[in-house]
Amino acid sequence: MILNSAKPAAPDFDGAFREQLSALFAWRRDVRRFRGEALPDGALARLIQTACLAPSVGLSQPWRFVVVDDPARREAVRAEFCACNAQALAAYAGATDAGAADAGAADAADLATRYAALKLEGLREAPHHLAVFCDRATALGHGLGRRTMPEMAEYSVVAAICTMWLCARAEGIGMGWVSILDPARMTALLDVPPDWRFIGYFCLGYPLHEDDTPELERAGWERRAQACVLQR
Amino acid sequence: MILNSAKPAAPDFDGAFREQLSALFAWRRDVRRFRGEALPDGALARLIQTACLAPSVGLSQPWRFVVVDDPARREAVRAEFCACNAQALAAYAGATDAGAADAGAADAADLATRYAALKLEGLREAPHHLAVFCDRATALGHGLGRRTMPEMAEYSVVAAICTMWLCARAEGIGMGWVSILDPARMTALLDVPPDWRFIGYFCLGYPLHEDDTPELERAGWERRAQACVLQR
Repeated sequence: MILNSAKPAAPDFDGAFREQLSALFAWRRDVRRFRGEALPDGALARLIQTACLAPSVGLSQPWRFVVVDDPARREAVRAEFCACNAQALAAYAGATDAGAADAGAADAADLATRYAALKLEGLREAPHHLAVFCDRATALGHGLGRRTMPEMAEYSVVAAICTMWLCARAEGIGMGWVSILDPARMTALLDVPPDWRFIGYFCLGYPLHEDDTPELERAGWERRAQACVLQR
Repeated sequence: MILNSAKPAAPDFDGAFREQLSALFAWRRDVRRFRGEALPDGALARLIQTACLAPSVGLSQPWRFVVVDDPARREAVRAEFCACNAQALAAYAGATDAGAADAGAADAADLATRYAALKLEGLREAPHHLAVFCDRATALGHGLGRRTMPEMAEYSVVAAICTMWLCARAEGIGMGWVSILDPARMTALLDVPPDWRFIGYFCLGYPLHEDDTPELERAGWERRAQACVLQR
């Protein structure tokens, strides 16, 4: 592989840029609280284009984007979230019932109470909704790199989502990933090919607040841990 | 959720930064050709720390990093790659045998020839090897967001990898993702807890070449496609 001499030189990412990039990683948050105003025309399309610069296994580009504008569909997605979230809360509460009056049960009751208080989506407030799917059946890439790890297709779609997330945040746009949804129901509800795998549902808009600490940490749900690194 | 007034103000990511960020997305490549020299002391540890700034479902941080330095283990990984890659090549060639002398068979023969010519890893040249796993059993995050989509744990690990990839490239460090490996064998070979899921094996070092076009595109394997965007 020989570099084409007509190519532009590789950019020099200097210290100032790298410092800002670190800040971007820290300030890119999962946003659930949005201001109502729409993004500028073309902003979502541009974010999608940028997402497509992500790496993908065998250059298979298996990402499929579904912009959800129809109010009835949006409301159906929200109803799905509410149903799935109610089941999740019941499961936390159920852990309490099973454990009688011991310390574990008290912890579980506390967890259920804390879960119920969390805001886990911004579906009503967010001006833009985007569903992202993975098409494992794509012919692109001729299956390269997916024989022993077919899940590399989904991982490629996640790479696109992460690229979009950073690009959005650099423009002051917040993104929130909603995973408290049933994947099979989402495929049906959004009327996409049945073999597309649901990867995530995203709320986009301008965030109400900015922070560099995860909302779940601020809410006392979980804390950052030390990285687990083994040597072999 | 009220902003703590002692917090630093959110950074302003200006136009110049965003332009460089776009360049970073374009120039971040899957690297398979490395110069031999090691990264500076502490560079890999720093990249891992940065990776941990990635979003994770429920703040579960399920990423597990395994730095592979032992030459015997590295060679065993390479042997695994060679075995899996030989099977992949045989499958491309098999598509030829099955199709006799028609046009499809000629295409398949061409594909097998082209596959055989690709360089798909830099395991021998890369000075650093890193395996990344996912621990679905982690107690962190209390299962939040993973009830209907347990695969969110793996997706969180991929988010960490993508963060590391961009951070590396901004420092001039190349990363290559090797997926032509058997996940169950990798767990055994690297002697990690059997319920950790193998996500990927990464070569790191300084790239031999720089480019903003995917190597598989330069090699004529696949081309960039238009984004698939549906409206609902």
